[in-house]
Amino acid sequence: MHLQGTMVINERGRLVIGGCEVVQLARDFGTPLYIFDEDCIRENCRRFYQAFNAGSGRAEVIYAGKAFLTTAMCRIIASEGLGLDVVSGGELYTALAAGFPVDRIYFHGNNKSYAELCQALAAGVGRFMVDNFAELELLSRLSVERGQVAKVILRVTPGIEAHTHEYIRTGQIDSKFGFTLPNGQALAAARRADELPGIEFKGLHCHIGSQIFELEPYSEAATVMMELAAAVKEATGLVTAELDLGGGFGIYYSAGDEPRPVSAWAAAILTRVEAEARRLNLPQPRVLVEPGRAIVGPAGSTAYTVGSIKEIPGVRKYVAVDGGMADNIRPALYGAKYEAILANKANLPPAERVAITGKCCESGDMLIWEAELPRIESGDILLISCTGAYGYTMASNYNRLGRPAAVLVRDGVADLIIKREDYSDLIRNDVLPARLVRTC
Amino acid sequence: MHLQGTMVINERGRLVIGGCEVVQLARDFGTPLYIFDEDCIRENCRRFYQAFNAGSGRAEVIYAGKAFLTTAMCRIIASEGLGLDVVSGGELYTALAAGFPVDRIYFHGNNKSYAELCQALAAGVGRFMVDNFAELELLSRLSVERGQVAKVILRVTPGIEAHTHEYIRTGQIDSKFGFTLPNGQALAAARRADELPGIEFKGLHCHIGSQIFELEPYSEAATVMMELAAAVKEATGLVTAELDLGGGFGIYYSAGDEPRPVSAWAAAILTRVEAEARRLNLPQPRVLVEPGRAIVGPAGSTAYTVGSIKEIPGVRKYVAVDGGMADNIRPALYGAKYEAILANKANLPPAERVAITGKCCESGDMLIWEAELPRIESGDILLISCTGAYGYTMASNYNRLGRPAAVLVRDGVADLIIKREDYSDLIRNDVLPARLVRTC
Repeated sequence: MHLQGTMVINERGRLVIGGCEVVQLARDFGTPLYIFDEDCIRENCRRFYQAFNAGSGRAEVIYAGKAFLTTAMCRIIASEGLGLDVVSGGELYTALAAGFPVDRIYFHGNNKSYAELCQALAAGVGRFMVDNFAELELLSRLSVERGQVAKVILRVTPGIEAHTHEYIRTGQIDSKFGFTLPNGQALAAARRADELPGIEFKGLHCHIGSQIFELEPYSEAATVMMELAAAVKEATGLVTAELDLGGGFGIYYSAGDEPRPVSAWAAAILTRVEAEARRLNLPQPRVLVEPGRAIVGPAGSTAYTVGSIKEIPGVRKYVAVDGGMADNIRPALYGAKYEAILANKANLPPAERVAITGKCCESGDMLIWEAELPRIESGDILLISCTGAYGYTMASNYNRLGRPAAVLVRDGVADLIIKREDYSDLIRNDVLPARLVRTC
Repeated sequence: MHLQGTMVINERGRLVIGGCEVVQLARDFGTPLYIFDEDCIRENCRRFYQAFNAGSGRAEVIYAGKAFLTTAMCRIIASEGLGLDVVSGGELYTALAAGFPVDRIYFHGNNKSYAELCQALAAGVGRFMVDNFAELELLSRLSVERGQVAKVILRVTPGIEAHTHEYIRTGQIDSKFGFTLPNGQALAAARRADELPGIEFKGLHCHIGSQIFELEPYSEAATVMMELAAAVKEATGLVTAELDLGGGFGIYYSAGDEPRPVSAWAAAILTRVEAEARRLNLPQPRVLVEPGRAIVGPAGSTAYTVGSIKEIPGVRKYVAVDGGMADNIRPALYGAKYEAILANKANLPPAERVAITGKCCESGDMLIWEAELPRIESGDILLISCTGAYGYTMASNYNRLGRPAAVLVRDGVADLIIKREDYSDLIRNDVLPARLVRTC
């Protein structure tokens, strides 16, 4: 397994994160346990902040909260000077509960409700990333009713889709998100934003995919979006003061993943935006980027205790841990590949190839199909790395398993940031109608 | 959409479940809302109970709680005379909290923890479905320490795997579950169960798959398992008093699904077990079956409010609802296909083909790719049928969406059985370490 962030192996052969032995964390907080490496989170924030020169005001780095959001995470993000993407009233509520600076909150979503728009207006969020015409009309009406002006960035489907090792440019994009560019909806949306009261047009936004390793799709998106900015300016006079090119920056999960340095992303994006502004005779927009996975993915990992081990000679050796698809559904959902290490045998060489499975009653509950590990025994502490993004946040109570605890580690100190769910949590929202109490 | 259970369309053109108008339920309880049709649940329980002649004591019908389990559901299952499968300490806790008769509880799982085994012994669960040698040894030790005898059924991987329209018989089964039959592990497990103190061997169990429509794999499994019972008897003298053939009975989700009547499952299984007992000169075992999806799947549905609608001319029309993959991940996870109806326009003919998408910030957040519906408008109440199994139970707080409420409807009365999660629930387990409070 590649060691991430502050991970080291100490002289006792144990894996250490943030100065804390993982086996000790497992003892103190139980397993499954999400471990977040604070220095790694902050380092990732700073890499983006510096590479995009966010301190100059020419760019802003906005953390995509859907990757992992708790009140503690909000505080870290705020203290690093980043903005925050929220995609629901619940994420907004979390940010406000943490005291996140509201003017640095960007409110996304393809289907914001009336209640959510009211909540966001009342809070005074920095930007509404408007997805569709109905939202634009409703936001205008609500803003006017409240005597407010909503600062709006239009979400655009640009006709570029990036995948890990390719991208395509298509004329018609089949997406639930945003105003379609190629068929003229995006330009029509800018016109409408210009007409409507209570709406202040600030710029344009697109998002071209997730877990991308190539630079070219971002440069290409910058070109397409700057051309749209030129068309918007010509048609309406509106200036695109902010250009949000989204996130999707690929990270390392397992062998074969080769993420670019943040400086390469920054150079590709900033250089192209500047060049296009000159070519199209437009003012330089402030560039916004929205890393989520790239901030928190490599900084999180999950510690499990090894339980039953089943060897089927000539077939496979199944090693079951005390969690699974309930706390990390990405292998089942996306076929995601992870790496693992035995935290209590971290200096031993690989001795066998095993499959890491969970304890859910389902064949699809696999975490890693092939892991090379030292001789493994029940009671070992197995750590899966790079689970920080879209792990806890997608966790369920499937099989009525309580969701894990999460700790933040730094300089040898571990602070609980999410309490483990206990059995009473599982029935906390259950209600027994009176007539079912009587009859049994 | 096929109407399920007590669903009818009333003279006002509205969908009614359990005597309750769905639009009224949406108004009273909000959306997204899980609606459970109590008569349909009970009817499904009774079909199994009667078809397998469970009242005679020759068979037992055991509800697989992982499909959907709350305290209210436990009471319904108990009152219908069914047993209950639990697969975790959390499910066991729920059953005990509901006062479920403990001797009718069957404890499954491929990786039961020390704590869970202690919990189950202390509760006195009816059967331990033992998955592997380590569990067998540990259970023996714990039983002896407590002066108890654990009644054990051995989970076997029989070398039969059923899929929707085929099944295979293989010599070596690649499964995390159970003692492998073809390589002799299953027989060895029976020998060990015979030797160990604190263990009372009651029988054998297998489970051949999910959402199965064919009878033959069950008959075939009955033969294979009865042959194992004969081998066990010959090797150890142990009698297989109970033969648990698992669940997996296929239900209707969408066009093309053609579930068998329960009587056909019962006939195929009971006839074959009886015949094999005669052929092999074995006593008739009590037959256990474990329907979960077949009990609760068609009895549950999800009501959403339609929000933003995005038409991309010549491409697709996206209709977004106020839930999505956070409350029903099956379309994203399994490619599951569902049907929908507009509950407020239930008597209108189809007028357009649309895609039903959710409000999560993810392209994969689709509920139905192609639904034929009347002309659809924002504010319509859209109901997706057959979401009762593996819907709520796999729900997450992804995007920090609160999990829906669930109501139980019957004879015009709607009782809340799960409270809706509100914003405060979302941060209830968040902890802010002191040092992060100070610095921001």
